[in-house]
Amino acid sequence: MLDLPYTFELNPPGFVPSHYDNHIRRTLTSMRGQYLDAAAYEAMLAAGDELLYEVYELARPHESGELLHGISIVHPGKVGDEYYMTKGHFHTVLETAEVYVCLSGQGAMVMETPEGDWAVEWLAPGRVLYVPPRWAHRSVNTGPDDLITLFAYPGHAGHDYGTIEQQGFRKLIVERDGAAVVVDNPRWGKMEGEKG
Amino acid sequence: MLDLPYTFELNPPGFVPSHYDNHIRRTLTSMRGQYLDAAAYEAMLAAGDELLYEVYELARPHESGELLHGISIVHPGKVGDEYYMTKGHFHTVLETAEVYVCLSGQGAMVMETPEGDWAVEWLAPGRVLYVPPRWAHRSVNTGPDDLITLFAYPGHAGHDYGTIEQQGFRKLIVERDGAAVVVDNPRWGKMEGEKG
Repeated sequence: MLDLPYTFELNPPGFVPSHYDNHIRRTLTSMRGQYLDAAAYEAMLAAGDELLYEVYELARPHESGELLHGISIVHPGKVGDEYYMTKGHFHTVLETAEVYVCLSGQGAMVMETPEGDWAVEWLAPGRVLYVPPRWAHRSVNTGPDDLITLFAYPGHAGHDYGTIEQQGFRKLIVERDGAAVVVDNPRWGKMEGEKG
Repeated sequence: MLDLPYTFELNPPGFVPSHYDNHIRRTLTSMRGQYLDAAAYEAMLAAGDELLYEVYELARPHESGELLHGISIVHPGKVGDEYYMTKGHFHTVLETAEVYVCLSGQGAMVMETPEGDWAVEWLAPGRVLYVPPRWAHRSVNTGPDDLITLFAYPGHAGHDYGTIEQQGFRKLIVERDGAAVVVDNPRWGKMEGEKG
């Protein structure tokens, strides 16, 4: 079977691809245990299982040499003082990178390595971010509008969500006096332990 | 050594990355033998070795799992009826893809496989192009302004320019009655033979 080149359109303001194969929707329930303020989380959830972020994927084989790509949209909002964010993950094949292009909105990419290094890069339209191999990554929306990014990563990368679900990220992005700041995650390494 | 995440800015109208490692400039001399109208080519060259296109690269290891990325800028113009274009290439590792995001301008990506398939996709701002594994690709600027694209491809892909230098692409993009059209390349498979 011939595998043909293709194009799709990204049009403002929504930037939903004109063609896509998968649409993933993550609501509050999928983030249980991940936000620091558990009381705020439960209060929000009681009011409704809000949509936090969406991913539109183009389907490609999960093979080295292919590039998996699509659009990530993190909606604006906070759980307590902590901004809406993606689950975040390591790649299963740690030695794989990812490139992001910020199309709209304001936010941050929170990153860390298994060796204990951490980094935060701020996102704004027109900014390109390179996440080198070994860095887990989570998008955080610190602005009043959707944070929209285009992503591409190697087809064989895979996703390891479990490590982050269990240990969290070392750093959180929270609002302090109206500004987004980086703070230590006091529960790092024991996220799962406090869930039950 | 810790390999840190980084960002760079792409600002209109030029979209030159705020940070880059390599700046490649291709002038008319580097395209000898590639344009159909050899007389027009020689006349232009006699008047000056004009800059046809530029590439700004971020340096990454040439390894699977990495993503080589940067910006390509093809300037506007024609050699005879044939629009300014890049040399074009196969990846040395054929089973590697490439993703392009058109940031500015109008143009086309001319593509073909070793098996004889060909494809042309038109580029405009906001359009994303996926070049699957096995497809040689060449950017062509069909508009009055710079054609500017962001590209990313697997670190182990490599570039095979020689095959295209020798055989050309099966299709050319030329101006007919003021419009860009796809025509057969009458010299396909014998480009090098006609150089001497």
